[in-house]
Amino acid sequence: MTRVLIVYSTDYGNTKKMADAITEGVRSTGAEALILEADKATQDDVLSSHGLILGSPVHMGSPDWRMKKFIDTVCSPLWMKDAMVGRVGGVFASGGGFGNAGAGVELTLLSMLNNIAELGMIIVPLPKNTHEFRSGGIQWGAFGRSGGLNMEHTGMTPEALKVAFHHGANIARVADIHKQHSPFIAVAAKGA
Amino acid sequence: MTRVLIVYSTDYGNTKKMADAITEGVRSTGAEALILEADKATQDDVLSSHGLILGSPVHMGSPDWRMKKFIDTVCSPLWMKDAMVGRVGGVFASGGGFGNAGAGVELTLLSMLNNIAELGMIIVPLPKNTHEFRSGGIQWGAFGRSGGLNMEHTGMTPEALKVAFHHGANIARVADIHKQHSPFIAVAAKGA
Amino acid sequence: MTRVLIVYSTDYGNTKKMADAITEGVRSTGAEALILEADKATQDDVLSSHGLILGSPVHMGSPDWRMKKFIDTVCSPLWMKDAMVGRVGGVFASGGGFGNAGAGVELTLLSMLNNIAELGMIIVPLPKNTHEFRSGGIQWGAFGRSGGLNMEHTGMTPEALKVAFHHGANIARVADIHKQHSPFIAVAAKGA
Amino acid sequence: MTRVLIVYSTDYGNTKKMADAITEGVRSTGAEALILEADKATQDDVLSSHGLILGSPVHMGSPDWRMKKFIDTVCSPLWMKDAMVGRVGGVFASGGGFGNAGAGVELTLLSMLNNIAELGMIIVPLPKNTHEFRSGGIQWGAFGRSGGLNMEHTGMTPEALKVAFHHGANIARVADIHKQHSPFIAVAAKGA
Repeated sequence: MTRVLIVYSTDYGNTKKMADAITEGVRSTGAEALILEADKATQDDVLSSHGLILGSPVHMGSPDWRMKKFIDTVCSPLWMKDAMVGRVGGVFASGGGFGNAGAGVELTLLSMLNNIAELGMIIVPLPKNTHEFRSGGIQWGAFGRSGGLNMEHTGMTPEALKVAFHHGANIARVADIHKQHSPFIAVAAKGA
Repeated sequence: MTRVLIVYSTDYGNTKKMADAITEGVRSTGAEALILEADKATQDDVLSSHGLILGSPVHMGSPDWRMKKFIDTVCSPLWMKDAMVGRVGGVFASGGGFGNAGAGVELTLLSMLNNIAELGMIIVPLPKNTHEFRSGGIQWGAFGRSGGLNMEHTGMTPEALKVAFHHGANIARVADIHKQHSPFIAVAAKGA
Repeated sequence: MTRVLIVYSTDYGNTKKMADAITEGVRSTGAEALILEADKATQDDVLSSHGLILGSPVHMGSPDWRMKKFIDTVCSPLWMKDAMVGRVGGVFASGGGFGNAGAGVELTLLSMLNNIAELGMIIVPLPKNTHEFRSGGIQWGAFGRSGGLNMEHTGMTPEALKVAFHHGANIARVADIHKQHSPFIAVAAKGA
Repeated sequence: MTRVLIVYSTDYGNTKKMADAITEGVRSTGAEALILEADKATQDDVLSSHGLILGSPVHMGSPDWRMKKFIDTVCSPLWMKDAMVGRVGGVFASGGGFGNAGAGVELTLLSMLNNIAELGMIIVPLPKNTHEFRSGGIQWGAFGRSGGLNMEHTGMTPEALKVAFHHGANIARVADIHKQHSPFIAVAAKGA
């Protein structure tokens, strides 16, 4: 069975809501989903997954430090061993989004995608024809805006969560295809 | 007299409107402003300026090809000669902005800033306390959103043009300071 | 039959050499390869391909303006139509590489990947376990360094061309898998 | 007296060596330098500085999590208050640098610069005419490569440390100019 791991950090629960919607999207395809906070996910969790989805709030234009700690301490040794080459990944983020130009979400998503790319994993973007794209993202992944024009907290919209759902489903479907047909030489998913 | 060169490319006139507002901002400080489309600006125009401001529409997450042609053919030889080291630069962009996450404007601004940095120029960001920041930008520079939720054309808002004005004024003031006090060894602005 | 389009621009022939090695890599998998300079490639060429590989010299930290013109005029309308969603892409670059830190190649590759992501295409990175990776690339794609410590022209090394070959083969194999099994809703490759 | 704060994280002492060289560069200009590991630096340390220099090892294409924790917990509240607007910043990094294309250092530097830009601070790049640039950096800042072709540890070269020294001196000189002449409205450096 195809397994997808969703790893996230969250401040006020907004990124968690997105992670939950992504998890539902993964499961809607028939895949198994494991959802963990960044400080709980282990190397075994990553190694036993065909797909890896990372999500974080936007903090000063890059991911939350707890997500970065997960990348440095859990993912980095797997990079050294080429253990994830040919598997499938994607990313998402939430944030207040102050200003009218994304507020640093693009580099935040790219920072997490950099980890995915370093691991040698196939990247699933967010296609423009995704349902409700206009309210939930950018080419690199799903984004849930949790703040209004004046920095007031507004929380996640249903539309942004819909985009997250579809992003999760897309990544799971691609992970499934690569689990079966990947041409890359890499360590097999543990126990798969 | 401190001189600032504004170079832009435009599709439907939106980036031009921003360039005009930036030009007004530059002039409001007492500095001289020269505003040119990307295919008109020459090496002499750049060399005779203490500040350089670049603006472009967002096209597939990077600047318009005419801006890129200006960078490759006019700026690149000045990089080779270290002719602009220690002067001052900044950037801006306009775009439909489809989605809720900047639609590629962050990498577009960084692509132009990469040119500024390669030239060895000091970079002026857009501070969050800039008047109307909430409607006109991101940390890297001013942004005017010209499209609505459904990709319909909406044009520039007065708020975004106000941000552009202040961004131009900020860059001109910093250019003036560095014209007088720059500690960098570089070719002096021609005729300055 | 799976078809891969390689689009490149070149100054002194270095990027062309890499494009040739990538083309050989694509063909080594049994796929069909079409290789075109950026000013020759048409929308039909792109639409009839299951994989798209873009390559450029590094110019001031971003792709050559002729590559950018191809992206703005040929790819942008395909983005509007969601015509390439679910197909497969990758990137490469060449450059003098002055300094010891990539000389702007990372943002150059990301600028081309931004186009791939905006089109909704799956991204194939360059895994660290690729043969000769140490002499030919970065996580985002293949890189051929054409200059030495003092900016003297040194040309492409056989090792860098080997990396390019494998990068082409990887992308072709993933394009083949997605041609057969892609879960994305998109316009079928013309004539495929 | 102009004060510059250098904040770094280090794994094997390489980034610390660079931080020391930068500190010497700052002091060579007559400025006061305070050098602190990321987990030791406080808001008061930042607030009492006219210049801020951040350095980190490259980990999976972005800064070390301890640097990120400093940014999230110490710098982010200062962003909220616009407390650093108009001051001066710069960045540096060290890393094994596996491959021939920077190994993720460009996005690592940009990630730290994103924090500098969000704070509204003027950015000092690394000009190409810096002594020994060819062995120690990229347009965004100084880089010390600590690994060889086969990932073996090689340590910092004297050339890279020389670049770090000059980068520190440049940033201190610009910080001094802006301390005296900054046109930006912001909270004054505490006790300055």
